[in-house]
Amino acid sequence: MIFRLDYNSDIAESISAVCRSKKINSGIVYFIGAVKNATIGYYNQSKKKYKKIKINKPMEIVSGIGNISIKDKRPFLHAHISLSDERGRVTGGHLYSPTTVFACEAVIIKSRKQLVRVYDDKTGLFLWRK
Amino acid sequence: MIFRLDYNSDIAESISAVCRSKKINSGIVYFIGAVKNATIGYYNQSKKKYKKIKINKPMEIVSGIGNISIKDKRPFLHAHISLSDERGRVTGGHLYSPTTVFACEAVIIKSRKQLVRVYDDKTGLFLWRK
Amino acid sequence: MIFRLDYNSDIAESISAVCRSKKINSGIVYFIGAVKNATIGYYNQSKKKYKKIKINKPMEIVSGIGNISIKDKRPFLHAHISLSDERGRVTGGHLYSPTTVFACEAVIIKSRKQLVRVYDDKTGLFLWRK
Repeated sequence: MIFRLDYNSDIAESISAVCRSKKINSGIVYFIGAVKNATIGYYNQSKKKYKKIKINKPMEIVSGIGNISIKDKRPFLHAHISLSDERGRVTGGHLYSPTTVFACEAVIIKSRKQLVRVYDDKTGLFLWRK
Repeated sequence: MIFRLDYNSDIAESISAVCRSKKINSGIVYFIGAVKNATIGYYNQSKKKYKKIKINKPMEIVSGIGNISIKDKRPFLHAHISLSDERGRVTGGHLYSPTTVFACEAVIIKSRKQLVRVYDDKTGLFLWRK
Repeated sequence: MIFRLDYNSDIAESISAVCRSKKINSGIVYFIGAVKNATIGYYNQSKKKYKKIKINKPMEIVSGIGNISIKDKRPFLHAHISLSDERGRVTGGHLYSPTTVFACEAVIIKSRKQLVRVYDDKTGLFLWRK
């Protein structure tokens, strides 16, 4: 499905809400657009901890790529985002909330495979059960 | 469909031409490759106006993500692009013409949904009718 | 298909191995995640030669977009990648090996079209036969 997100909504919350209402448990997600502000993350692989980076200015969404799978019995969005500023410089990372939509066009392609996230000790992340 | 764009063609014009000839009105678009030069845009959300940035050197297309929908009764490509230089530094934004193909591999996934762009007063952009 | 790549595996080798084992000759590929280190390339269009850039630190995979087609009678992955560091700064280019997985979630969408790479004199690249 292709749709646009509401002005002032949060990207991750909006896409997750669509997945819950449409009963989409697994799939692929893409989006482009622009945000009023954003929160992105960088995973410190040795500390096994995300560092959050706040961006408090309007940016283009150059790319948004992610997926939907089951975490804690609910559809969960995992997405990475890249953003550009008025000079075209690009900043990116793991998509966190709040990241506020100015305009955003999203795609969800449903998958039949059931993907379930479980804690992975090696990385400290919730990865798909093999 | 997966295809390559012609050497020296313009990305947006080439993809739009394929959509017109194949009667694709709605869909998703991806592309990677390399350009000889590019024009990207940053939307100034308060002025409601795009600022164009010209890049007059060869760059890799790190990501190209977009969609096709109807604007003014014709298939219209909206895409965002990120480009990298000889040191790997990435610049990105809204894809404008001219952006000249050195080599470009594109994908269009047709959608059945009819998406029509209409002027949106809040953003100053042509967004999909809800 | 949606799947995750093994910890410490090489992205291009892992995806190529899946394609060989599943007999996928043509398709689209996406991935996000994080790497321990990476090798990216920038194509010098006048010298017709790739310059390799080594990144010897953990990075987020902000975007990975590519495709599978036939080169030398085998499935061949061509992908571009963008990576972000602890400050969100993005580096990108052509994906080379070694690029070592910390965590990586990939998608392959199979295509029926047979795409075959042949040497293209104008660019010095192996492009799809038209």
